[in-house]
Amino acid sequence: MIFENELIKQIIEKYRVIWALGHARALMSWDSQTYMPEEGVRERAIARSMLSVLAQKLILKPEFVELVDKASQIEDLNIYEKGIVRVLQRTIRIMKALPSEFIAEYSKVTQEAMLAWKQAKEKNDYNIFKPYLEKIIELSKKQAGYLGWEEHPYDALVDLYEEGLRTRDVDYILSRLKKEIKRVLDKIMSEKLYPLKHELEEIRYDPKVMEKINKEVLKLLGFPIGKRARLDISPHPFTQSMGIFDVRITTRYEGIDFKRTLMSTIHEYGHALYELQIDPALSTTPITGGVSLGIHEGQSRFWENIVGRSREFVEVIYPILRENLEFIVKYSPEEIYYYFNTVRPSLIRTEADEVTYNLHILLRAELEKLMVAGEIKADDLPELWNNMMEELLGVKPRNYSEGILQDIHWSMGNIGYFPTYTLGNLVAAQMRHHMLRESINISEAIRTKQFKIIQEWQKEKIHKWGKTFAPKELLRRAFGEEYNPDYFIKYLEEKYLKH
Amino acid sequence: MIFENELIKQIIEKYRVIWALGHARALMSWDSQTYMPEEGVRERAIARSMLSVLAQKLILKPEFVELVDKASQIEDLNIYEKGIVRVLQRTIRIMKALPSEFIAEYSKVTQEAMLAWKQAKEKNDYNIFKPYLEKIIELSKKQAGYLGWEEHPYDALVDLYEEGLRTRDVDYILSRLKKEIKRVLDKIMSEKLYPLKHELEEIRYDPKVMEKINKEVLKLLGFPIGKRARLDISPHPFTQSMGIFDVRITTRYEGIDFKRTLMSTIHEYGHALYELQIDPALSTTPITGGVSLGIHEGQSRFWENIVGRSREFVEVIYPILRENLEFIVKYSPEEIYYYFNTVRPSLIRTEADEVTYNLHILLRAELEKLMVAGEIKADDLPELWNNMMEELLGVKPRNYSEGILQDIHWSMGNIGYFPTYTLGNLVAAQMRHHMLRESINISEAIRTKQFKIIQEWQKEKIHKWGKTFAPKELLRRAFGEEYNPDYFIKYLEEKYLKH
Repeated sequence: MIFENELIKQIIEKYRVIWALGHARALMSWDSQTYMPEEGVRERAIARSMLSVLAQKLILKPEFVELVDKASQIEDLNIYEKGIVRVLQRTIRIMKALPSEFIAEYSKVTQEAMLAWKQAKEKNDYNIFKPYLEKIIELSKKQAGYLGWEEHPYDALVDLYEEGLRTRDVDYILSRLKKEIKRVLDKIMSEKLYPLKHELEEIRYDPKVMEKINKEVLKLLGFPIGKRARLDISPHPFTQSMGIFDVRITTRYEGIDFKRTLMSTIHEYGHALYELQIDPALSTTPITGGVSLGIHEGQSRFWENIVGRSREFVEVIYPILRENLEFIVKYSPEEIYYYFNTVRPSLIRTEADEVTYNLHILLRAELEKLMVAGEIKADDLPELWNNMMEELLGVKPRNYSEGILQDIHWSMGNIGYFPTYTLGNLVAAQMRHHMLRESINISEAIRTKQFKIIQEWQKEKIHKWGKTFAPKELLRRAFGEEYNPDYFIKYLEEKYLKH
Repeated sequence: MIFENELIKQIIEKYRVIWALGHARALMSWDSQTYMPEEGVRERAIARSMLSVLAQKLILKPEFVELVDKASQIEDLNIYEKGIVRVLQRTIRIMKALPSEFIAEYSKVTQEAMLAWKQAKEKNDYNIFKPYLEKIIELSKKQAGYLGWEEHPYDALVDLYEEGLRTRDVDYILSRLKKEIKRVLDKIMSEKLYPLKHELEEIRYDPKVMEKINKEVLKLLGFPIGKRARLDISPHPFTQSMGIFDVRITTRYEGIDFKRTLMSTIHEYGHALYELQIDPALSTTPITGGVSLGIHEGQSRFWENIVGRSREFVEVIYPILRENLEFIVKYSPEEIYYYFNTVRPSLIRTEADEVTYNLHILLRAELEKLMVAGEIKADDLPELWNNMMEELLGVKPRNYSEGILQDIHWSMGNIGYFPTYTLGNLVAAQMRHHMLRESINISEAIRTKQFKIIQEWQKEKIHKWGKTFAPKELLRRAFGEEYNPDYFIKYLEEKYLKH
């Protein structure tokens, strides 16, 4: 047993029912997006909110909080036990900081805001969404106040999504990326090293056939479908872990441009692998599950971009593609590689390639910081958005729907969330760097289908720990440093500029 | 609003989280039998037991029990409010009666017993199961003692599955049926009115094709797949309601003898219809959901046997069958009708036709009564089983697996459960009788595909009430009488003897 302290064992025992509520909510969430009949939504919403309030009550029970307080005063806890105290203290602190009236208002406003956003986007009318965004900005400022911060109110919000992340980290990372990505991008553009678009983007496929391909590719990667995993269909792809032994991913089939479903499947596979490789000894404890959105996104981006969009991977899956998609025969693996790696500055974040993606995040993070600091109003946002878009990517939205209204996240109140996407890109490149430094030949592992070599390395360095260490400490222990943007730049240069 | 009393409204408010836990457990149960990856079972088992203990704790919370007590003293409650008090008092009474050590032991013994039963059945070795059955008999006696009874310890057990049912009801019903069914069966057999078997039982089908047929038949019946319902696949067919707006059924495809999957689908449809037609005003309250296993089985048996196995229904679905199963063209609707209605005394309950089915129940109920009364030992059971089988059905098991070891139920501790199957057959025939008396032309409704006429009648008489009335009161209000075996006999005579 990795847990030795009696008090910690008591905490784990008591926590198990809270874990069970989390398990149930995970299943409800998965089901709501995959198999639930339409009209089930009303009763499901009631059940979800009831169980989420119940879980909060159980965590904040005085006896439980007291046990955690007591445990935090013990000096000779081992790393896992310390992890449990850290995670529970953080959860209790956040839950205690937010008054229940605030949570009720926040929930009400965001629910209305999501509807307003949907309508606004459809009608291309920012004014429908603006009053809600104003309220959400106000609520986010309040939220930052409740949670507390030292240097910048945005600190409190980013920390919610990425434990320990600070505005200064975000600033440092994004300003470095801004300069370097623009340099790389200009070079790719001017030298026409990678195509802007590819005719395969216009070719239609049969969803049934693509599902077969996705499953074959997942099998190649060792994804244990049926045993410990599933692949289903949902409007927005996601990964949901019910525990260490049941991790489910989804994808969608748009019927056109097959790389979209294939890459989204590999992306979610990366998330799932993290959850599947957590040490089983952590099962049902507070430190099971991936530690943060940024570290999680690092795993998905690694498999999607560094593996999935590599020349070697295209070679490996080429027979599967050719066997199932009749149009593939006209394209060489080299051509498929360029289809997988088109680079073009575009308006829509979710369609961005790995070179330009972080510029979309930069724009959002800058605006969020200004909003939370009270330096801009909802009124100013569309113009600022459009100007920054032009400055960063050289393109300008023709309307609100492809500009400020493109993302659902702000309407959901998720302010401070976007930077974790960029962290993911950094962590992926950082893992790549350290793998190579430790003489893991990634290209060779892919070429020979020995994905196990990569998986084992990720398991030992990152996955198996679950939430044992906070993200920055996890990175320090694995790599001797925290988030470092240099490796991402280096990766872009090596992939896109060295020919 | 149908709930007016302030105290009742408070109870409903507090109950909602208990409902939510039930919703979560319903979803977990459905998922475990349909989509869950194999190895998810360990963590799922933990989650289920955690949430079930939690729900029990919340129901037995002194504040909640006190509210229910208080409400029970109010005199001018309306029927719905009275229903809420009745259901909660019953739940609290049962939960309080069983000590937690007993529940723990019961759960441990039955878990081991299920494994032993499986092994015993596979190896055809009663001795493997016997010591567990002995323990289960002892535990059932204990259970009856905790729950309390007036005339016979079996009362306490049957009441668990069918509120208000007593041993004397079971005795009366089964002794009537025994005599009458034997008479009808002898006549069918001697006059060879219905075939013993049919060659279609040997014909194989493609599961994909049968799934399409099942869905078309369900569509004909108005089953709202996608909107409020689902049809999935599971090893043992079942119905699971997540609430009034999300009711899911399953079936299985054995690849041979297509009436089995078709009839099981229609059977589960009957269960689902009940849940779907409950008054939406009862949603998330203690009186939502079907009231008892017997009443529930009445709905499923009605649709499976009285509708599904009728001449008119065969006519209606014949085009669907012929279009999808190439072998159907060789058989007339009349022949399909006889294929749906073979009658033969057989050894296996789950394969029994509607004529002989209740004799299998009679045998089990008799043995259960003797067990619980301490009048027989596990040692005596196989011989008793075989002798009764011969007496009732004229067939004798050649081994344990097709005799005493055929059902899983005793290993699960479900003693007192079997009689609800017979109640279902009675209730189905009873509904038929009263429909006809109220000038509902069932045959005509089926022939013209106006299933809505039957559904509406069932909704008004039975379905919409949920658990508002206890089973016997529900029947009295609907039909002016309780369970009555006469209509079932009459139905058998009309169907099988009038030619």
